[in-house]
Amino acid sequence: MRLRLLSASVLAVLASVPVAWAGEGMWVPQQLPEIAGPLKQAGLKLAPEQLADLTGDPMGAVVALGGCTASFVSPNGLVVTNHHCAYGAIQLNSTPENNLIRNGFNAPTLADELSAGPNARVFVLDGITDVTAQAKAAIAAAGDDALGRTRALEAFEKQLIAGCETEAGFRCRLYSFSGGNTYRLFKNLEIRDVRLAYAPPGSVGKFGGDVDNWMWPRHTGDFAFYRAYVGKDGKPAAYSPDNVPFQPRRWLTIADKPLGEGDFVMVAGYPGSTNRYALAAEFDNTAQWTYPTIARHYRNQIALVEAAGRKDPQVQVKYASSMASWNNTSKNYEGQLTGFKRIDAAGQKHAEEAAVLAWLKGRGADGAGALAAHAKLVSLLEQSRATRERDLALTMFNNTAVLGAANQLYRLSIERARPDAERESGYQQRDLPAIEGGMKQLERRYVQAMDRQLQEYWLNEYLKLPAAQRVAALDEWLGGNDAAAVKAALDRLAGTRLGDTAERLKWMNADRAAFEASDDPAIRYAVAVMPTLLKLEQERKTRAGENLAARPVYLQALADYKKSQGGFVYPDANLSLRITFGNVKGYVPRDGVLYTPFTTLEGVVAKQTGADPFDSPQALLDAVAAGRHGGLADPRLGSVPVNFLSDLDITGGNSGSPVLDAHGRLVGLAFDGNWESVASNWVFDPAMTRMISVDQRYMRWIMQEVFPAPQLLGEMNVAR
Amino acid sequence: MRLRLLSASVLAVLASVPVAWAGEGMWVPQQLPEIAGPLKQAGLKLAPEQLADLTGDPMGAVVALGGCTASFVSPNGLVVTNHHCAYGAIQLNSTPENNLIRNGFNAPTLADELSAGPNARVFVLDGITDVTAQAKAAIAAAGDDALGRTRALEAFEKQLIAGCETEAGFRCRLYSFSGGNTYRLFKNLEIRDVRLAYAPPGSVGKFGGDVDNWMWPRHTGDFAFYRAYVGKDGKPAAYSPDNVPFQPRRWLTIADKPLGEGDFVMVAGYPGSTNRYALAAEFDNTAQWTYPTIARHYRNQIALVEAAGRKDPQVQVKYASSMASWNNTSKNYEGQLTGFKRIDAAGQKHAEEAAVLAWLKGRGADGAGALAAHAKLVSLLEQSRATRERDLALTMFNNTAVLGAANQLYRLSIERARPDAERESGYQQRDLPAIEGGMKQLERRYVQAMDRQLQEYWLNEYLKLPAAQRVAALDEWLGGNDAAAVKAALDRLAGTRLGDTAERLKWMNADRAAFEASDDPAIRYAVAVMPTLLKLEQERKTRAGENLAARPVYLQALADYKKSQGGFVYPDANLSLRITFGNVKGYVPRDGVLYTPFTTLEGVVAKQTGADPFDSPQALLDAVAAGRHGGLADPRLGSVPVNFLSDLDITGGNSGSPVLDAHGRLVGLAFDGNWESVASNWVFDPAMTRMISVDQRYMRWIMQEVFPAPQLLGEMNVAR
Repeated sequence: MRLRLLSASVLAVLASVPVAWAGEGMWVPQQLPEIAGPLKQAGLKLAPEQLADLTGDPMGAVVALGGCTASFVSPNGLVVTNHHCAYGAIQLNSTPENNLIRNGFNAPTLADELSAGPNARVFVLDGITDVTAQAKAAIAAAGDDALGRTRALEAFEKQLIAGCETEAGFRCRLYSFSGGNTYRLFKNLEIRDVRLAYAPPGSVGKFGGDVDNWMWPRHTGDFAFYRAYVGKDGKPAAYSPDNVPFQPRRWLTIADKPLGEGDFVMVAGYPGSTNRYALAAEFDNTAQWTYPTIARHYRNQIALVEAAGRKDPQVQVKYASSMASWNNTSKNYEGQLTGFKRIDAAGQKHAEEAAVLAWLKGRGADGAGALAAHAKLVSLLEQSRATRERDLALTMFNNTAVLGAANQLYRLSIERARPDAERESGYQQRDLPAIEGGMKQLERRYVQAMDRQLQEYWLNEYLKLPAAQRVAALDEWLGGNDAAAVKAALDRLAGTRLGDTAERLKWMNADRAAFEASDDPAIRYAVAVMPTLLKLEQERKTRAGENLAARPVYLQALADYKKSQGGFVYPDANLSLRITFGNVKGYVPRDGVLYTPFTTLEGVVAKQTGADPFDSPQALLDAVAAGRHGGLADPRLGSVPVNFLSDLDITGGNSGSPVLDAHGRLVGLAFDGNWESVASNWVFDPAMTRMISVDQRYMRWIMQEVFPAPQLLGEMNVAR
Repeated sequence: MRLRLLSASVLAVLASVPVAWAGEGMWVPQQLPEIAGPLKQAGLKLAPEQLADLTGDPMGAVVALGGCTASFVSPNGLVVTNHHCAYGAIQLNSTPENNLIRNGFNAPTLADELSAGPNARVFVLDGITDVTAQAKAAIAAAGDDALGRTRALEAFEKQLIAGCETEAGFRCRLYSFSGGNTYRLFKNLEIRDVRLAYAPPGSVGKFGGDVDNWMWPRHTGDFAFYRAYVGKDGKPAAYSPDNVPFQPRRWLTIADKPLGEGDFVMVAGYPGSTNRYALAAEFDNTAQWTYPTIARHYRNQIALVEAAGRKDPQVQVKYASSMASWNNTSKNYEGQLTGFKRIDAAGQKHAEEAAVLAWLKGRGADGAGALAAHAKLVSLLEQSRATRERDLALTMFNNTAVLGAANQLYRLSIERARPDAERESGYQQRDLPAIEGGMKQLERRYVQAMDRQLQEYWLNEYLKLPAAQRVAALDEWLGGNDAAAVKAALDRLAGTRLGDTAERLKWMNADRAAFEASDDPAIRYAVAVMPTLLKLEQERKTRAGENLAARPVYLQALADYKKSQGGFVYPDANLSLRITFGNVKGYVPRDGVLYTPFTTLEGVVAKQTGADPFDSPQALLDAVAAGRHGGLADPRLGSVPVNFLSDLDITGGNSGSPVLDAHGRLVGLAFDGNWESVASNWVFDPAMTRMISVDQRYMRWIMQEVFPAPQLLGEMNVAR
């Protein structure tokens, strides 16, 4: 795994940049005509115009899950994505008696498929509208008032989305590209009844676990199947036994030509965030502080949960998903830091920025605006850097389980008092189902004693802050500076009733006065700190408003500079649909070593230790020992391919993305980047940036020989 | 490193086997006409007959160092070998003020060259004589008396060697091939004044240290230069300032064609021991007991020395060489065990032996002798296995520093009372210089407190033995079974004066009575246990005599069986001159990974951590950063090659062997096998067995750009 979105996305700086050609580029669909030449050159056999039809074949089959990507693979709503993208749903349906993470899941009939949970979604793209002019006009209307600009954009966004979502069953989202130089509205059909159809045993789907995470050679069967359901009227509806499978307009077909080294491959998906053209100072802050600090705190949290889990199996089960996320993020950050060193990312960033600034200075009056914008952005960074330790400790403490619920519920009561359109984004009517889903799901991810330990950890971090960064409201609530005060506070919080799901749901409908009169200690905490949190939010929004003015100016200048040097330009990832393409290709991780682009069944067996995460199912070991390739072997490899490398440009959010061949047929699913590639989120390294995918032939082999699902193979027209 | 001979060679079973063609084969020179076809096929451009002339060009340039191989590279006695083969000499000449291991050594003129020590030797082959008929006749004369057979062979050997060595300056040695089916006498010029001319800094010569030992990718500059000196009369002589450089008849020239992937390479050298056709039961005993046990004890010794070394730098310096050897051996054994598992060596051995036995049974009366011989060999193994724990503990305790000296000195006094020809081998007149050298060198490798700890370790191991394996003489000497007895014994031994070099040398000339009257506690120990040691030696010799009768019969049958299946046959390694050939070639260590056959300068820098063993000299880092290739870059690599892989068949003892190209020119020095190859000592694995060599271009690059030795480059005709 783990190109699922990282939970702690710290900076979301957007930029447009030119391309040194080598798989680099997360192209927006609007650029397809522009990159038709390179697509053909890389080996695409489809007409590029065919790709440009986002609701046509094959692009119309690609869907978003929210944090992951997926695709329809049958006319009956069957969806394929990564095992790690379906992990929450698999975990949700696991019981002590039937651990689906361990055992896998295979619904023999539609009736056996299991709800992926109230928050599971399949978003089917309906259309994209350019709204740049309107957005810019709304911002401009606020003039010099920075906070006003942010609020104007928020108001514009809410109004736009409300209008878009008047049609029932649709979900809309506004995306800002290139630091605010372009705005586009995405309209998606929002399917809310998503069910788990198939997941291989964890010893296949998570094979290699955290040991192999980000690594090559890789042998992970990281795939699972959902099915999208809608009401009998064909319209999205909440889960109901009466719902029927969704009939998508488009679905992918499985490749009929064996994929090999050098072949063209292409990915469509929803990459979350890249920072390729952040300021050098922003890069420095991340590399020198944010990444090492967060990685360290997550490692500490992991140690706490591991220790507790050894005593209480409940903790193991309920924090498995959090642990996976912390592990993944820490490893990612540490990998980025190593990569920064390897490619001297700091040197590259500073040299590049110096060149841009020199070029701007050379342009005299024409460059002055961009230079001023650059200086403004640097000073904004300085401001936020001054309180970064405080902001981290506060955010993390406020996001522990029951405190997070208390804060969210109280805020909801405040926002609900306003007209819907004026409420803070995330607390509007349209957001209530997601909030409710979260309140319900908390019970699956929460153990009181563990939550207390995490509260304690972050309170102690808070106590380490220098006086200048302390927050009066929290100090007052805490009532002291020492271990005794922390213990007293934790003892108090232990009395909360918000650990109970019914209690949390009850508070969803309470008004502000009820909160302020409550004696629940978690709610009293939320009431005590909320004014401060709102003040800090307003400060952030003011800085965001400054950003809204400065960032587009500087990034446009940066793009102009880049174009003056020749080359294509694509915007940084921002969760919106992107296309990336290139070729199946290994790489040289270090002198004297070549990573070849395919792994095989024999490699799975060679890693077998009999202990997690290298404990393949006996059926797999037997099938390999018996040489049962099931007609899926590649003669060039003499075996069935398992995972493969290609030089595509993906990032977190691309997990589960369909990998298409030159004819637009499904050849695999993207599920990871290699260890050396993670630094490419900031500075693209063409020599070592590789996407790791699971080969469709391995998926089918597992479904034939190991954990058979002939019904799904038949549905995809690849039954043996 | 480290294809120097391992110190604890446990079994020396010799065999003849047919070949599955793939670089396998340690050919005796007499087989060169037989393998002329395969040599040509692999790419040899020289006439195979030219190789068959062992005193001609190029074979006449290859010399033995005793444990390592080397070669002349100038008409003025310049010898090139591995840094790790010259390690003892480098260490010997190091002082606290000038640590040559760290700093390297470069003699600007001949007068600056340093003696490699009294035991350093260069053996130049003069001739090989087949003496099979005489040896077999001598053994046969002893009839059914097993001990008599061993003694008869010993007597024959001594007489033969005495005759051979009547010519001054020569050293002769009898080699048994294929379990005693062939005997050959090797006559060598023995050069006794060997001097260190050049060694790169340890950060080049030992780059990667124990971390990279046996590993690929590799970047070790494992080379050093000696010079052979003789008396003014041109005859070998002990070190004297008046000696002059030896003028060899043959010397190698440096290759003038760049070596590349797939190219023919060939190695001549002195591999120590392989066990490719040991009995399956002998293999089992080694894999199940010997290797894991010795590896464990060495790891324990390493831990003891490391702990002591942290407190006493003297221990670090004086035990560096022992530590390197223990590390190397443990890692080798552990690697072999891993390899056995990977290739199912036990399964292969048992299946092969079952096939041979079935074939013999099918031959009726013709096979009966060999079947009986096989049964006899199995029962001999049973016998030695019954006391293996005792033999190990006793041997190791008796070989600790001062006790080893005491035992050797006392034994010498016993043997010296006999006529020279009747003395035990190793204690004859011809052996005295080596014994004296050892007694002198001990001071460089001994710290009393450390020696005591090692004594204690092995005494404690002895105390763990079951009663049946205890030795009365040692029990009596020890006087108890507990920690107090051990402490008392160690306290007693601490009173020895044999820690002093002058004292040890004094005892070299003492007679037996003087030992038996001595109150030196180490000598008293030797006197106490010697009768037992002699008795055990006699038991071993009796078993050896049984072996002398049975092994050739069974191994001849094994060879006949192998020949009946087709293929070439070569004898197991036995320290005698061998030739192996093949091609420059990488390998697939695991699914999805290819090890490419060359590493480059950039790889050295990529490993740089600034800490040992990855702390290259600044001059090296600067030269690489500046792109100074010194005309030695290979255009196919874009850089200077450092180390390379080939599929040749070598083992411990081959260290320092010249690697020759198709024209017989020097392209590098063998210095290691890869981790996956070590199991090939027992069962050859063509897929993963690779030799690791240092490329001559890296040697020259170091001598040009990093630690310049223009005088030696000039002497080898490769000055820039």
